[in-house]
Amino acid sequence: MKNILIIGAGRSATACIKYVLNQAAKFDWNVTVADFNIDLAEEKVNGHPNGTAARLDVSQVKERRALVGAADVVVSLLPAFLHLEVGHDCIDLRKHLITASYVSKEMYQLSEDAKSRELIFMGEMGLDPGIDHMSAMQTINEIKAKGAKLTSFKSYTGGLVAPESDTNPWHYKFTWNPRNVVLAGQGTAQYLEDGKFKYIPYMRLFKEHETIDIPGMGVYETYANRDSLLYKEVYGLEDIPTILRGTIRAEGFCKAWNALVQIGLTDDSYPILSSDELTYLEWMEAYLDKDIEGGSVRERTAKFLGETPDSEVMDKLAWMGLFENEKIGLKEASPAKILENLLLEKWKLQPEDKDMILMQHIFEYELEGKQKRMTSTLIMKGHDASDTAMARLVGLPLGIFVKLVMQGKINKIGVNIPVEYEVYEPVLEELKEFGVEFKHEETDV
Amino acid sequence: MKNILIIGAGRSATACIKYVLNQAAKFDWNVTVADFNIDLAEEKVNGHPNGTAARLDVSQVKERRALVGAADVVVSLLPAFLHLEVGHDCIDLRKHLITASYVSKEMYQLSEDAKSRELIFMGEMGLDPGIDHMSAMQTINEIKAKGAKLTSFKSYTGGLVAPESDTNPWHYKFTWNPRNVVLAGQGTAQYLEDGKFKYIPYMRLFKEHETIDIPGMGVYETYANRDSLLYKEVYGLEDIPTILRGTIRAEGFCKAWNALVQIGLTDDSYPILSSDELTYLEWMEAYLDKDIEGGSVRERTAKFLGETPDSEVMDKLAWMGLFENEKIGLKEASPAKILENLLLEKWKLQPEDKDMILMQHIFEYELEGKQKRMTSTLIMKGHDASDTAMARLVGLPLGIFVKLVMQGKINKIGVNIPVEYEVYEPVLEELKEFGVEFKHEETDV
Repeated sequence: MKNILIIGAGRSATACIKYVLNQAAKFDWNVTVADFNIDLAEEKVNGHPNGTAARLDVSQVKERRALVGAADVVVSLLPAFLHLEVGHDCIDLRKHLITASYVSKEMYQLSEDAKSRELIFMGEMGLDPGIDHMSAMQTINEIKAKGAKLTSFKSYTGGLVAPESDTNPWHYKFTWNPRNVVLAGQGTAQYLEDGKFKYIPYMRLFKEHETIDIPGMGVYETYANRDSLLYKEVYGLEDIPTILRGTIRAEGFCKAWNALVQIGLTDDSYPILSSDELTYLEWMEAYLDKDIEGGSVRERTAKFLGETPDSEVMDKLAWMGLFENEKIGLKEASPAKILENLLLEKWKLQPEDKDMILMQHIFEYELEGKQKRMTSTLIMKGHDASDTAMARLVGLPLGIFVKLVMQGKINKIGVNIPVEYEVYEPVLEELKEFGVEFKHEETDV
Repeated sequence: MKNILIIGAGRSATACIKYVLNQAAKFDWNVTVADFNIDLAEEKVNGHPNGTAARLDVSQVKERRALVGAADVVVSLLPAFLHLEVGHDCIDLRKHLITASYVSKEMYQLSEDAKSRELIFMGEMGLDPGIDHMSAMQTINEIKAKGAKLTSFKSYTGGLVAPESDTNPWHYKFTWNPRNVVLAGQGTAQYLEDGKFKYIPYMRLFKEHETIDIPGMGVYETYANRDSLLYKEVYGLEDIPTILRGTIRAEGFCKAWNALVQIGLTDDSYPILSSDELTYLEWMEAYLDKDIEGGSVRERTAKFLGETPDSEVMDKLAWMGLFENEKIGLKEASPAKILENLLLEKWKLQPEDKDMILMQHIFEYELEGKQKRMTSTLIMKGHDASDTAMARLVGLPLGIFVKLVMQGKINKIGVNIPVEYEVYEPVLEELKEFGVEFKHEETDV
């Protein structure tokens, strides 16, 4: 094997491309970086002798298949809904495929075809999903190996801004797809607590948040992800009474975001008529409960939310500009789109800003009649807005896994996610060289 | 023209079929009643000399087109999403088409084809939509004819149970599609108030209800329908500052239904795992806010809702059986499906029960410098569970309009809804013979 194709050269691809080019120099591989925007691809290849930039419109089947056909391993960093097309190419042309996205039902359906052709189709090989799976499975298997019985598994991840770059009342900046941040949590969160199903609908999700304490960092808020139940089987925890996966945010975030949810501003299902002509203040007024009378829009919004006009929550909303007489300027946009557009500048990572990834797993288990609790915590900060911890933690596992596949060290064929020793052990081991290390604390309960 | 085809012989078709058969005897028309269940069609035709029952699987194009081809006028009482296929048949085979459903965007796209073939495609020719359009337009045009300027139009309709048959704490029974009742209001209500857009998201809809006073009946609650803005142009009220359409429910209904919404029980978007094995009580427990501790599931649910355990709202929930240790018995059902199934028996119209339709339009207008207010109110009760006011008020406008078309009295070709004098005047006039009469009250404001 000699040729690697990386499709997608956007911000999230930087760390992966850099790592793979470095390895390519060592092992004499060729790396093709393909993007719709060839300038972007060229910028990322940056004249590296083992690298080639290519222009690719993924909707053009012929071009796409020509590039896939010339590769041995394909990394797709496209938006998740585009992976499947590339997956079919890889089946037809007998190529390995690696992505950092959640594996869709449709992609899983390619598993038998991939197996019969001895192809490795690895998904969820980034940060979350990715490093979360690998680090959790490593500890789960260690605990099981002691002969202990797991009684609870909770796992939280957050892509945040580092305290030294935290300059706004939300204590948050965008380090990932802003649209996904605005729509996060829609649907109903499902998890298991003491052997019982628990459901939290979206409209209650940010209200019923919890807190965790990250050693050395302090208290953060968490809210439940939609899909915790899925991971019972995937993690080999069929009989575990409690399993929950969640998202980490700074203190105070959830209550204020809940205010936006309760007003109705995160809805993406309908356009606001004449939204380009409205000001943010007029838009807010359109959502006021008409039974609440008297006072400014800010005062009436506060009353609706059960807040005082100068509460922390109201300060956060005001800081966003929701009570300003400035035009929205977007045509027929959904509330969620308006919100995303408003936050895009406000929550923008400035060039010198450092982002920060927090991940914490909390395991509870029974060993020799004793109840134990173990936390496993990762804290990692980025360097600046172009070299973020987020991009590194998504890109490095991808890159390391590409190397392992190129070296013929991976035997796991079919569609998989990184939950097996053969996969997570070498990836986590090499990640340590990049400072990605979990701290473990064990206590009696 | 001699032949009428009525597709669909379910409960909602009874009054329409009966009326059309009566007219057919007078005018020597043939009426074919087609249904997937031919027994049902035969039962409705009931040996009438002008009637024929036919078995029709609407997915069978050949059968369907044979029946449509033999008719002059087609009435589709199919579920709304099936009208379009029949619409295409009617275009190809040059037949008039009448339905009681909301006209879809796709159906409107057939308008030019219908016009060029001189076909009448009339939709929204039932109760709501139907009689609401016709009665509103009649009064709107009368007010305009006086030289007055309309400043506000609000219109409310409710399909309820008559007070003498009201035997449960919700003061509600099903007289129409139960699924639609459970899902009612999902989305975001949009209307216009004092020249400003207003938005009420679903999670706030039943909380922010209003009240109206129906002369002789007392106070009822109303909540906004999704789509009020659409009717500004349709009703020729382009410049009106206030327009709102809403649904009528008994006092206390909205607060209790809001409790179900807040808990999350009206969601139709995901299945409850192992729902057949759970009891209603366990299901409710799965939705409890975990921060609320102590007490029974009923007590904790009350706390979550800000109610006392014996409040009216809690009594309504308990009456439904939500706190019973009885098995749900439905496999992998969505919350909304479980709720519908639970209510199906509890809210069933008993054989002797009378239903009741309430409709009220409230017009405000300026005439010769004075502010006036006019209410136009319809109250109609059914006879029993098989001869409901609902079925009559849906079926009679359809039947009357079929007659007008058969008689060649309608010139309005293309896809339309009944907002023009030529259409509403004769229909409303004949409806009076069936006791469908609006009472008007005019007052100075």
